[in-house]
Amino acid sequence: MKVLYLNGPNLNMLGVREPSIYGTLSLADIEQKVKKKASQSGIEVEFRQSNHEGVLVDWIQQALGQFDAIVLNAGAYTHTSVAIRDAIKGTGIPTVEIHLSNVFSREDFRHKSYLSPVCIGVICGFGAESYSLALDAIANFKKK
Amino acid sequence: MKVLYLNGPNLNMLGVREPSIYGTLSLADIEQKVKKKASQSGIEVEFRQSNHEGVLVDWIQQALGQFDAIVLNAGAYTHTSVAIRDAIKGTGIPTVEIHLSNVFSREDFRHKSYLSPVCIGVICGFGAESYSLALDAIANFKKK
Amino acid sequence: MKVLYLNGPNLNMLGVREPSIYGTLSLADIEQKVKKKASQSGIEVEFRQSNHEGVLVDWIQQALGQFDAIVLNAGAYTHTSVAIRDAIKGTGIPTVEIHLSNVFSREDFRHKSYLSPVCIGVICGFGAESYSLALDAIANFKKK
Amino acid sequence: MKVLYLNGPNLNMLGVREPSIYGTLSLADIEQKVKKKASQSGIEVEFRQSNHEGVLVDWIQQALGQFDAIVLNAGAYTHTSVAIRDAIKGTGIPTVEIHLSNVFSREDFRHKSYLSPVCIGVICGFGAESYSLALDAIANFKKK
Amino acid sequence: MKVLYLNGPNLNMLGVREPSIYGTLSLADIEQKVKKKASQSGIEVEFRQSNHEGVLVDWIQQALGQFDAIVLNAGAYTHTSVAIRDAIKGTGIPTVEIHLSNVFSREDFRHKSYLSPVCIGVICGFGAESYSLALDAIANFKKK
Amino acid sequence: MKVLYLNGPNLNMLGVREPSIYGTLSLADIEQKVKKKASQSGIEVEFRQSNHEGVLVDWIQQALGQFDAIVLNAGAYTHTSVAIRDAIKGTGIPTVEIHLSNVFSREDFRHKSYLSPVCIGVICGFGAESYSLALDAIANFKKK
Amino acid sequence: MKVLYLNGPNLNMLGVREPSIYGTLSLADIEQKVKKKASQSGIEVEFRQSNHEGVLVDWIQQALGQFDAIVLNAGAYTHTSVAIRDAIKGTGIPTVEIHLSNVFSREDFRHKSYLSPVCIGVICGFGAESYSLALDAIANFKKK
Amino acid sequence: MKVLYLNGPNLNMLGVREPSIYGTLSLADIEQKVKKKASQSGIEVEFRQSNHEGVLVDWIQQALGQFDAIVLNAGAYTHTSVAIRDAIKGTGIPTVEIHLSNVFSREDFRHKSYLSPVCIGVICGFGAESYSLALDAIANFKKK
Amino acid sequence: MKVLYLNGPNLNMLGVREPSIYGTLSLADIEQKVKKKASQSGIEVEFRQSNHEGVLVDWIQQALGQFDAIVLNAGAYTHTSVAIRDAIKGTGIPTVEIHLSNVFSREDFRHKSYLSPVCIGVICGFGAESYSLALDAIANFKKK
Amino acid sequence: MKVLYLNGPNLNMLGVREPSIYGTLSLADIEQKVKKKASQSGIEVEFRQSNHEGVLVDWIQQALGQFDAIVLNAGAYTHTSVAIRDAIKGTGIPTVEIHLSNVFSREDFRHKSYLSPVCIGVICGFGAESYSLALDAIANFKKK
Amino acid sequence: MKVLYLNGPNLNMLGVREPSIYGTLSLADIEQKVKKKASQSGIEVEFRQSNHEGVLVDWIQQALGQFDAIVLNAGAYTHTSVAIRDAIKGTGIPTVEIHLSNVFSREDFRHKSYLSPVCIGVICGFGAESYSLALDAIANFKKK
Amino acid sequence: MKVLYLNGPNLNMLGVREPSIYGTLSLADIEQKVKKKASQSGIEVEFRQSNHEGVLVDWIQQALGQFDAIVLNAGAYTHTSVAIRDAIKGTGIPTVEIHLSNVFSREDFRHKSYLSPVCIGVICGFGAESYSLALDAIANFKKK
Repeated sequence: MKVLYLNGPNLNMLGVREPSIYGTLSLADIEQKVKKKASQSGIEVEFRQSNHEGVLVDWIQQALGQFDAIVLNAGAYTHTSVAIRDAIKGTGIPTVEIHLSNVFSREDFRHKSYLSPVCIGVICGFGAESYSLALDAIANFKKK
Repeated sequence: MKVLYLNGPNLNMLGVREPSIYGTLSLADIEQKVKKKASQSGIEVEFRQSNHEGVLVDWIQQALGQFDAIVLNAGAYTHTSVAIRDAIKGTGIPTVEIHLSNVFSREDFRHKSYLSPVCIGVICGFGAESYSLALDAIANFKKK
Repeated sequence: MKVLYLNGPNLNMLGVREPSIYGTLSLADIEQKVKKKASQSGIEVEFRQSNHEGVLVDWIQQALGQFDAIVLNAGAYTHTSVAIRDAIKGTGIPTVEIHLSNVFSREDFRHKSYLSPVCIGVICGFGAESYSLALDAIANFKKK
Repeated sequence: MKVLYLNGPNLNMLGVREPSIYGTLSLADIEQKVKKKASQSGIEVEFRQSNHEGVLVDWIQQALGQFDAIVLNAGAYTHTSVAIRDAIKGTGIPTVEIHLSNVFSREDFRHKSYLSPVCIGVICGFGAESYSLALDAIANFKKK
Repeated sequence: MKVLYLNGPNLNMLGVREPSIYGTLSLADIEQKVKKKASQSGIEVEFRQSNHEGVLVDWIQQALGQFDAIVLNAGAYTHTSVAIRDAIKGTGIPTVEIHLSNVFSREDFRHKSYLSPVCIGVICGFGAESYSLALDAIANFKKK
Repeated sequence: MKVLYLNGPNLNMLGVREPSIYGTLSLADIEQKVKKKASQSGIEVEFRQSNHEGVLVDWIQQALGQFDAIVLNAGAYTHTSVAIRDAIKGTGIPTVEIHLSNVFSREDFRHKSYLSPVCIGVICGFGAESYSLALDAIANFKKK
Repeated sequence: MKVLYLNGPNLNMLGVREPSIYGTLSLADIEQKVKKKASQSGIEVEFRQSNHEGVLVDWIQQALGQFDAIVLNAGAYTHTSVAIRDAIKGTGIPTVEIHLSNVFSREDFRHKSYLSPVCIGVICGFGAESYSLALDAIANFKKK
Repeated sequence: MKVLYLNGPNLNMLGVREPSIYGTLSLADIEQKVKKKASQSGIEVEFRQSNHEGVLVDWIQQALGQFDAIVLNAGAYTHTSVAIRDAIKGTGIPTVEIHLSNVFSREDFRHKSYLSPVCIGVICGFGAESYSLALDAIANFKKK
Repeated sequence: MKVLYLNGPNLNMLGVREPSIYGTLSLADIEQKVKKKASQSGIEVEFRQSNHEGVLVDWIQQALGQFDAIVLNAGAYTHTSVAIRDAIKGTGIPTVEIHLSNVFSREDFRHKSYLSPVCIGVICGFGAESYSLALDAIANFKKK
Repeated sequence: MKVLYLNGPNLNMLGVREPSIYGTLSLADIEQKVKKKASQSGIEVEFRQSNHEGVLVDWIQQALGQFDAIVLNAGAYTHTSVAIRDAIKGTGIPTVEIHLSNVFSREDFRHKSYLSPVCIGVICGFGAESYSLALDAIANFKKK
Repeated sequence: MKVLYLNGPNLNMLGVREPSIYGTLSLADIEQKVKKKASQSGIEVEFRQSNHEGVLVDWIQQALGQFDAIVLNAGAYTHTSVAIRDAIKGTGIPTVEIHLSNVFSREDFRHKSYLSPVCIGVICGFGAESYSLALDAIANFKKK
Repeated sequence: MKVLYLNGPNLNMLGVREPSIYGTLSLADIEQKVKKKASQSGIEVEFRQSNHEGVLVDWIQQALGQFDAIVLNAGAYTHTSVAIRDAIKGTGIPTVEIHLSNVFSREDFRHKSYLSPVCIGVICGFGAESYSLALDAIANFKKK
């Protein structure tokens, strides 16, 4: 099984950006952690990050036939992008929406996600652990 | 570590109630699965279910000093109960909100949770697996 | 055919509570009237009343396999209870929503019902007669 | 006692129009059924149908002194006509609002009725049976 | 100068319909009063009433070239008719919107008028006197 | 009969302020016109203007026992002043709300008046003529 | 193939009414243009216009079995008529919604159409050309 | 005079739960304080607390004929319970709504109370003193 | 301790204005009552009233260093004045918001207070007694 | 005449993505069809597609002086992009908004277009035919 | 060039009132700073402050012919005063809206300004510097 | 001190795009003006423009450690981009939001900015001068 981890805008700033909200681990740290765990289950994992909505759409489309599932932390685009929603729905690749922070205890506009209704499920609020939990979630989902 | 799994209204009907949405496992099946997994990590787990908002509030209060964490599938009360929210916030017990179904792909009134802002995080949409993921989430949270 | 008449909060106060709105008959008076009419059609009727949302949920669940239909005057919970809605939908028992008063000529918050969309239909505004009409409605529905 | 059954737009298409929602009986079939039942109670019934809001207003006005009550299935005008509301309120003829389908389980704009607050009560969701139930409702109302 | 007084739905019921709101004068009484006053100023006045939105639209269109101004009590259609608004705007005939009652002290839906923005002005709340005031208003307007 | 004409903020700028909306007459011109007309009917008229909400409230209170009626062009305070509303309601002096311009064809916030529900009626859109029409309206009202 | 062109309120005023918005062609001019084009494709076209919502509903119902498709410029009723919507949906005749003007660059209330969701598609903003384009759209649709 | 003090969900946690918001006194401490003060005026006071909406409704009903007034801190149910509102209105027992904290400086959903409109008045923000003030308020009210 | 009682618009009309809502006591009567009670506790009280928002702001500012607390019945300005809110917050003088009537059982616009969030607490609905209760509330608050 | 066809996000997936909504033709198929038709009228057509909002803005700007008109299927960006709207308005190139599906029968957020108010007109719901109709629309528009 | 600096409610408390939001400079300090800077450009500056909405309206009107421009920090009245808006628009004096704090990072009701649409522009968030920047803005504007 | 001027979509069209709103200066003209002024204060200024939201996010991130402040005219993205907001907040670089036009006198959707709450302040409406004022604002801010 191959899983694509897509990271949206400003997630390349992890460890730098507002550590009280997002923690002190960098995205590379998280990638390493997830890959280590994935390899134990024979799952192949690839991490990508972009600040560009269009690039995220491109990558979701290109994942068709290349990856079995997507774990998506779309960051700010979660709340504004219909284009990413359409890409997920259009390709039909099983996708898990994740967030480091608990978006529901933050600003009102972060309570609404264009993506949730077209994803399998949502995991948020557990910091870097959200990434690991998504791996289990997707592995379990594909087994069914 | 001791974890209390609280289940709200109609979750005693699992397996009977709308299996296309909630799956075919009964709550007892899920309990067994979670307990098996928990025992491997030396975590003690207790499952309770009630259709009464007040009973759920009672149990959260009584958990103070008895349990290290709560995993809460408040079902319908997720969307209507300020009382449960206040109980979580008042006792200060770390709590994970879970749902079997992806509430964001259902009726509008299920998109709003009174509980999310006072929980650590939210896991929804993975069926019975949501219960297992929450165990990992809480175990990881307590390690920090 | 067996029909369960469920009555929500404050309906035990009928005859005492605001007679200008709810009439002078007590709930027992209504029960007697309905039972008399039902017996003529060979329908068995049971009346219950509770001020507790959770008890109403319990009773709906327990009706599964015991009753052919429910006539539900959920009173105040009509406007606030997702739990009762889920119980109706989850058990799948044909249910008729009734009200003594015309809820649409009262406060705005009484114009919205969480229950209507999962019931067969709604009868309101006819006082105690709403209970009798529901019996005909349900009898006719089951004939189809 | 004389009761006027008024039917709004598209109800002349019953049996033709969306049978999965409105059933297979034609309006003439329903009329026959209601008249048969009415005659048993010595009630005189007249059926009329129009696609014109103004005609419905005309008929309500003309009913003054001619009919003891109105049973009104205003169809689409339920949700858009203040004129019909004013006619009911202005003439003061006791009126029962009915619908074949359960309007509350359909589009949002069908959840709001301009007519309900000025009618005695509402009966909806029971197909052709809604017409018969209204007869009992009105008969019972006039007895008081 | 020729002025067309158009009266919408239920205004033919004046004197009969809710006299506590609309007064005891019939529409014919008002017509007589207005005509008497108009004749003193050499103004020709014609009164029409219809319960049909379409007829009101027809009459506004036909007034083009026949009347110098319109005094419009559109009744219930004030709050629901874009068609009448378009007719007023399309013909460009100077129009005064009037109401017998003070619509702003009644139900919320009567606070909004589709017609006001395309009329010269609004006069409401003075009972039959609203009709007379409109005559002065229009006479003064045409003098400018 | 004595009538108090109260004018709110910026009406002292009439003739200077936005003549395309408010016309070229000054407030003194209008006063003269109204007084001339009033004297013909033996009505005593007094004009006052203030930019201060509090002064308008003071004047309405002081009018109690001094004036038979008020004609009120509250200008901007129409849309923001609960204090003036309470003064009208509290003193119980019959009041006619007027506006020079058609407020309903201007900005949205001008469509809402705190004052209309506690006034006899509203006259707007006829420029200086609104002041004269109000005199007739109030004279007619007092005759009843 | 037979296509019915239905035109709603005020469209009989084309050429007279607000030419800066609706152009200088009369409805008869447009009819001639469309018929000429239709005849080249062997399509039979009939034009009707009414200011009456009820008449438009009547015509849609009567088209059943008589016409293969409807091109509908419902004018003002686009934004207020549930009755026309129900007629289209009830008869199931393929319908194209058209407008002369670009309704989305006009008043807010013109941005909402009750009809669009039950039509095949929408064409607006191209003046008389909207009528011609609809012919092609419907011809192409029937070919499928 | 006998006064029933009803306390809603989580008020049994006073002193434990969020002392920065609710203070350090336990409910028993407050009870003692109030009883001491009441005894000086010869008022009998009874304190009850429940986390169950239904129990609060039961108690209000049972107070009929047993108590002269109710002081109600409904806690979270203030914002969600129509059932408690109906119980207060239905029994007609004079009731004072109180809160320890100033609910208007907290989350938006705490700004709305279903109970206020059916209570005599509201006292909030004074901590335990709110309970004492209510005693004076009710004593004064009964004197009238 | 010195307490400033500030009274907003129309409170000088007490006893005159709508006695069914506000009672028959004049403001002077209330002042006398409060002063008598205050003197028993050695508290100095001053009463002021103004119809001017700006004067109320002036007085709050001038109270700084002169008074220990403010009891504020801002009347209509409660619902419209950000300026008074800013004065309370800016000076930091402990302030209790009071109302004679139960504002929550009146018009919707009276349910919202700009002042509540910056006051210690709110007391409303007890008529003149609201003024006395506020004295106790503030005395108790200063003791802490 | 040169016409630029711009296609937004996910339109490169046509034929793959949700064929039940968008049809089975690929974008290349549509391009071929449109070009064939265009060549018959001597119109030069160029097709471009991008998933990037910024690229679409770039292309619209670059079209200035290069193309006579734009046909724009902005896909998801229709509902979220002010930037594209500003580009259309800023360059002033005549633009036709098109959609394959009938956006008005889909999710609510697709009912709102930032682009419609600055386009000539809108064509939606006709599948690939929408592209052809736009060609006629634009050709006709340029003739004027 | 003469510029009038108008300061609204509570700005006389600068330095005293909430220094963490508004800084430690008094209004006199700011005046001195601005005058010093203005004198270097040969601009005459006058500072006024009032807590009274009406006084601010008076001053704006009196500025006509006396001042070339206004710099307006209306404080709380920014969000509630239509009267000040009308004064600015009515006199037509070029006006710059300023605020010390960044109103957009504060309470929701401070995000809306009645004044912005009738001012040249807005400067906010720079503390006392907002006053100086406005001088440059207005000087530059008048040069054009 | 080094200041980065970031310009969003369509600002490269300045001078071309809607000169009545945005003026006749090109962005290069403004850059030259700002640089000239900046050099006088020894401030280094760099101008960049992009139509791509992602590029603007990239540039804000890259500015960390390279620039002391940002002046941001995000154009259309002001109203739609959470990603840019997060970048500003995440990097913590002091940022001034500017606009050429007075966004508050334009379309409603331009009244809301995602960026304002995380910027120091806002300057809008002064055309090219907004860019110069921001330089002073930022220079003054850094001095503190």
